[in-house]
Amino acid sequence: MQKTKARTLAGFMELEPSKQIVFNNMKEKIKSVFELNGLSPMDTPILEYSEVLLAKAGGETEKQIYRFTKGENDICMRFDLTVPFAKYSAIFENQLIFPFKRYQIGKVYRGERTQKGRLREFYQCDMDIIDEGELSIYADAECLSVLSQIFESLDYYIKIRVSNRKLLSGALSFYNLQEKSAEILNILDKQDKIGPEKTLEELSKITTKSNEILHLTAIDSVEKLQKIDINNEVFNQGVEEINELFNILKILKPKNEVVLDLRIIRGLDYYTGTIFEANLLGLCEPISVGGGGRYDNLAENYTNKKLAGVGVSIGLSRLFDVLDKNNLLKFTNTSFSKVAIIPLGDTLNHCFELSRVLKNNNVSNEVLYFNKSFKNKLNYANRKKVPYIIVVGEKEIKAQIYGLKNMETGKVIEDKLENLIKILKE
Amino acid sequence: MQKTKARTLAGFMELEPSKQIVFNNMKEKIKSVFELNGLSPMDTPILEYSEVLLAKAGGETEKQIYRFTKGENDICMRFDLTVPFAKYSAIFENQLIFPFKRYQIGKVYRGERTQKGRLREFYQCDMDIIDEGELSIYADAECLSVLSQIFESLDYYIKIRVSNRKLLSGALSFYNLQEKSAEILNILDKQDKIGPEKTLEELSKITTKSNEILHLTAIDSVEKLQKIDINNEVFNQGVEEINELFNILKILKPKNEVVLDLRIIRGLDYYTGTIFEANLLGLCEPISVGGGGRYDNLAENYTNKKLAGVGVSIGLSRLFDVLDKNNLLKFTNTSFSKVAIIPLGDTLNHCFELSRVLKNNNVSNEVLYFNKSFKNKLNYANRKKVPYIIVVGEKEIKAQIYGLKNMETGKVIEDKLENLIKILKE
Repeated sequence: MQKTKARTLAGFMELEPSKQIVFNNMKEKIKSVFELNGLSPMDTPILEYSEVLLAKAGGETEKQIYRFTKGENDICMRFDLTVPFAKYSAIFENQLIFPFKRYQIGKVYRGERTQKGRLREFYQCDMDIIDEGELSIYADAECLSVLSQIFESLDYYIKIRVSNRKLLSGALSFYNLQEKSAEILNILDKQDKIGPEKTLEELSKITTKSNEILHLTAIDSVEKLQKIDINNEVFNQGVEEINELFNILKILKPKNEVVLDLRIIRGLDYYTGTIFEANLLGLCEPISVGGGGRYDNLAENYTNKKLAGVGVSIGLSRLFDVLDKNNLLKFTNTSFSKVAIIPLGDTLNHCFELSRVLKNNNVSNEVLYFNKSFKNKLNYANRKKVPYIIVVGEKEIKAQIYGLKNMETGKVIEDKLENLIKILKE
Repeated sequence: MQKTKARTLAGFMELEPSKQIVFNNMKEKIKSVFELNGLSPMDTPILEYSEVLLAKAGGETEKQIYRFTKGENDICMRFDLTVPFAKYSAIFENQLIFPFKRYQIGKVYRGERTQKGRLREFYQCDMDIIDEGELSIYADAECLSVLSQIFESLDYYIKIRVSNRKLLSGALSFYNLQEKSAEILNILDKQDKIGPEKTLEELSKITTKSNEILHLTAIDSVEKLQKIDINNEVFNQGVEEINELFNILKILKPKNEVVLDLRIIRGLDYYTGTIFEANLLGLCEPISVGGGGRYDNLAENYTNKKLAGVGVSIGLSRLFDVLDKNNLLKFTNTSFSKVAIIPLGDTLNHCFELSRVLKNNNVSNEVLYFNKSFKNKLNYANRKKVPYIIVVGEKEIKAQIYGLKNMETGKVIEDKLENLIKILKE
């Protein structure tokens, strides 16, 4: 029979079981934090009408999109979880209870060139809080707090850099540089990579205020920001919002560091206030693993209802990928079996009884029923890195005493099943 | 600003929060049962090379597929979780530990006409057990057991009808009807709908053995099957396998009814032995909510390694849809908040302290910090159906005694926070 080569598209992650378990555990932890914070779950289709998904997008985004026709429909695969959320909130605007807080974990698609090892299919983990009309600044702080809680729960350190769109846009207005705003922001966006000197050089080419701008973006505390000599209404509003935000954070006490940093730009043009970015610490260079910000009018392309919101997005696949490539993940188990039950002699029926009792006690397990040698079964449990085994022979059945072997330490505890269950449930 | 109509593609399920929570709970329960049984998790891309995904398919399947090109790639969206699993097991054949047991929960895509309310995007929940060369018949029994456990955990009753491909194919050989096999199976497949009389009538048109065939498919016990007068090697093997399977089930004791029923056909031509189908009971007519069977050679299109397997697939979206349409689901909560903390006066800071303590104790909650009236906040908690509220005023802070109000009963318990947490954790 002719064979087709089994292969997976470039940029599409597919993991062997031991890695998949670690990935899923990370996903579960993120989900738990979202739910602990009372967010509603959401799940939207991966396919949408192109007209709906691209109501706003254009340029770069559109080029990356997976788009096709099926029957009479012009269809796109979602490229983020924000646009589908905007659509969703317009559809359900009369059923939702505001402020509406949601989370969504799902795959998104971007057909980028994959040279840089970029993923084309990846999980995003989003939360958003939206309200009719005005949304409290506490919501921004809550997003930062949840972002921090997530990385606490994953056991990695991040630094969250926070700014506000109004600061730079107000300042550029004050310096009469509105028209060069896109160019200037573009240069500032590269500052992390090219450093302040090169940034100054590039800014000097287009404005005489390069020193002032660089000085502004170097500011790292609200106090210094409040003292700066820029008199512009939008700027002042930005300062006030940032001040309020950091005051609330003093109460919420996120365990990861949150700093003011005007060098973050966040490309997406729908942000209008608070913006932030989370960098994973502990690697040679800090990696961006999430971010978000505030938008004034989420669903303006679909409805007249004004929905102000703030959101966070965490790039889970990218995070996993970076951690994996830096050997920061520990892969052990390949399944969820906590116990492998191995028959010795003709004891299979009894093994299944045991298995049922363990499952009733919520202890995951499997009976090694397959028609292979005892040694082969031991080897199977070993290779699968099942944490415990119980060997069941005639002797064990008669005495109703079983040996629970810890496969890592080699230690065996012999006891009644009910006592072994207590150990397994610890 | 011009608006785009917010709408979702036909056949794509999108749920409001209270329904999404119920859907997710069902998904979580299914996942838990898979994990309790020690299965490894899997996650494969939604997009695959068309050449890979369609290595075997053809005809009907191919017409339903979402297929397109992007750059130089001819791409398909997966239409089930079995073909991607076959590809996966060929790619990882040297890393997997056999027998390999996996589960996968994910969306699949079929661009069917949607007249009948059929879904085009839907969740499937699959498990499979594969082994190199021969696979123990215990694996078939394990699949049936897990299928039963899943519906126990969902709290619905199913009847699992089991047959074996070898029975009918052996019998038709015995009657020298191999060449009319497809036609006959096609008629038998409709028996549930058209009834035995009409079936007999249709069979009579193409064979003189219509009575014998109908008599065979009416058999409902292994004992009767063993007594039937068909002398054919394949048939006898089928009887032996069914007998063994039912003997193992006597040990595994699934709580849902499992019956022999030769009237189930299961269209997919890759099944070679055991086949089964689960029908949801309690509705006006029984609805198929899952099924599966055994295949001799899973990955034959991709590798020379022979992988025998048996699998189950549960149509979660369809199950949810049927239950919902029959008003069998109860929708209450719209979020995961167990407690809403409501400030009375200037007590917001203290509310956040409380919130943190509750979260540290794994009690999901939210602080109603938004800038609205107290009455409005009560109303919000009520509409969201948050089970408990705590109102925090100066009095509560001074006394360190809080009132926990059960929103359903209206009962308030006043106590120290640590005692309230005990109640909330129950």
